[in-house]
Amino acid sequence: MKLTIKKEILTIHLENVIKGLSTKNLIPILNCIKLELKEEGMYLISTNNDISIKTFIDQEDIEEIKEIGIIVVPGRLFYEYIRKLEDEFIILEELIENKLRIYTPQAFSDINCNDKNDFPNLDFNTKKNYITVNSDLLKKIVNKTIYAAAVSEDRPILTGLNLKIDKNEIKCSATDSYRIATKKINVKNKINEAVNCVIPSKNLNELVKILENNVTDVEMHVYNNRILFKIENLKFVSRLINGNFPSIEEIIRKESPISIKININKLFHALDRTTLLAREENKQTVNFIIEEKQVKLKAVIPEIGKVEEKIELEEKTKEKFEISFSSRYMLDTLKNVSGENVVLLFSTPTAPIIVKTEDEDNYVQLFQPIRTY
Amino acid sequence: MKLTIKKEILTIHLENVIKGLSTKNLIPILNCIKLELKEEGMYLISTNNDISIKTFIDQEDIEEIKEIGIIVVPGRLFYEYIRKLEDEFIILEELIENKLRIYTPQAFSDINCNDKNDFPNLDFNTKKNYITVNSDLLKKIVNKTIYAAAVSEDRPILTGLNLKIDKNEIKCSATDSYRIATKKINVKNKINEAVNCVIPSKNLNELVKILENNVTDVEMHVYNNRILFKIENLKFVSRLINGNFPSIEEIIRKESPISIKININKLFHALDRTTLLAREENKQTVNFIIEEKQVKLKAVIPEIGKVEEKIELEEKTKEKFEISFSSRYMLDTLKNVSGENVVLLFSTPTAPIIVKTEDEDNYVQLFQPIRTY
Repeated sequence: MKLTIKKEILTIHLENVIKGLSTKNLIPILNCIKLELKEEGMYLISTNNDISIKTFIDQEDIEEIKEIGIIVVPGRLFYEYIRKLEDEFIILEELIENKLRIYTPQAFSDINCNDKNDFPNLDFNTKKNYITVNSDLLKKIVNKTIYAAAVSEDRPILTGLNLKIDKNEIKCSATDSYRIATKKINVKNKINEAVNCVIPSKNLNELVKILENNVTDVEMHVYNNRILFKIENLKFVSRLINGNFPSIEEIIRKESPISIKININKLFHALDRTTLLAREENKQTVNFIIEEKQVKLKAVIPEIGKVEEKIELEEKTKEKFEISFSSRYMLDTLKNVSGENVVLLFSTPTAPIIVKTEDEDNYVQLFQPIRTY
Repeated sequence: MKLTIKKEILTIHLENVIKGLSTKNLIPILNCIKLELKEEGMYLISTNNDISIKTFIDQEDIEEIKEIGIIVVPGRLFYEYIRKLEDEFIILEELIENKLRIYTPQAFSDINCNDKNDFPNLDFNTKKNYITVNSDLLKKIVNKTIYAAAVSEDRPILTGLNLKIDKNEIKCSATDSYRIATKKINVKNKINEAVNCVIPSKNLNELVKILENNVTDVEMHVYNNRILFKIENLKFVSRLINGNFPSIEEIIRKESPISIKININKLFHALDRTTLLAREENKQTVNFIIEEKQVKLKAVIPEIGKVEEKIELEEKTKEKFEISFSSRYMLDTLKNVSGENVVLLFSTPTAPIIVKTEDEDNYVQLFQPIRTY
């Protein structure tokens, strides 16, 4: 293998492909990037068994292809070294079997590479029948729901994001069994078969980072045990989580007797202050009292003191209502809404709190209150 | 105690005084700030037994003093709460003994305070005979030497900065026994008695943070067991470390047979790349070879590979010279120099490397090489 390439082009592709590297040091080959140079261009491939990424640099973007070939480089070291080079062009050459020389006018580096035969064979095949979605929309639907996924591996299915696709609608939901976030968007084309799958949320976090630099459309190819996202010259494959995702539709009630519209900014800052005291206890319990045209927030920790905040409401509420919840849960929902006001929906002091916005009726957040008696 | 004060003024003073709070949770009173409201204004005092800070808000900067008094508040909670308030004015009132109410139009908070009698009596007396130094110069002399102080507590004296004051000159030195940084500056006035003391470097780090917001002169009052810095309305007291600081003058040789002038930026980036490979071993050994009009940097780690960098020199050197050192030590020295070139002085492959700049002859850095044979 031998080629000359612009440092900038190689770096951009490496930045994407390193997201498929293992963060553990257990199996050396999962810390490697396979560089496959062909007549048509160079493929860069990585896998950590959970995510696999394949990106392609077209021969038009390569200065010179002298000799095609394959080499398997230690991924992070290669990326860091290339990134730190200051020259415009770089020459990569396999000196002897499994030894890569990286040249620039002022420096060179010889890196020991892994055996190319050890690199796993990966399936990056695409389907005829796929869904196309705008990358910004895909980012949004993931970002607005992923926070509600479980961190703990107690119930693996809850660490994933549930993706339901029916006709031209995608519904994305997450729950850690204490709270739920769910959002619907429309896709550009219809698909024939309905999809219902669960994608590990940590994999989607990596996908979202790759989408940051792309404004193009994304193709989604769903298989039984994996999902492939195609973003221009890049293919991102994630495994799926087996199992049944809980049915959240039944938990989100259609009617709520008590509804208030409250200023997002005011509620956020009042809660932020109340949390200062509340954070001393684990649950961060805040007492939330609706009285006619105002809301009171209270936190009392006998050893430390108490805080009380008042927020005026625009509209008078019918009845007095009191509920307690974890301020962290409410703050998390507020981080995901935009606009001036948020709509809070209550039923009883033990029923979940539903958070909606005025301008985004396809987005629902919900969390359990705390019983204080 | 009762007063009305601008949030902004209180916050600025709290930002300084919290630097004297303990970071451990062992002795509650060392996590507290004492507020002492008198006719002339309010004193804010903190101590962690290592640092003590006293700052003063003049009555002119207080909206209204209704009732003088003393209260001892939990420092970080009080600071965080005040900082997060959105109102322009704040009322502080001792409701009942050791309970502080913080009011604003939309919120209030009652905070349990500590017993004022438990707060230690601290000595913030000043001397008639003190040294005055520009705050920027003081920051510079500390920042440029402190990195060489020991982190390990094996020899406590080496965790401090040695301050030697003679007539109108301050000399500041630090060493962890592998490297030395020393710098001299002139002070504005002469003192009668020579000073030779060692200040804990972590305390000086806090002092430097306070100096960030001040462009005024600093008074230094040196006692046997402590040093007091007076910065406008603020007094900062640090304990001193007992013991004899090693005599570094003898280690810094006056003559060096080999001297090269090298571009700081080029050397930094070449080392940065070399370190990528070298970091895999603990010492980060880099081989440094001077040959006529160029310098070669080499790092070889048999399992990983090797890197080689070339830097052209402006002036031809007389002889070929080879030395090995830790790239981290050299990078640390380069972070503290400015200008285009640095001067490296060598004697033998086992003698310390001296780093100087062309424009700052009162600043010397030195570190031990690594024996590779």
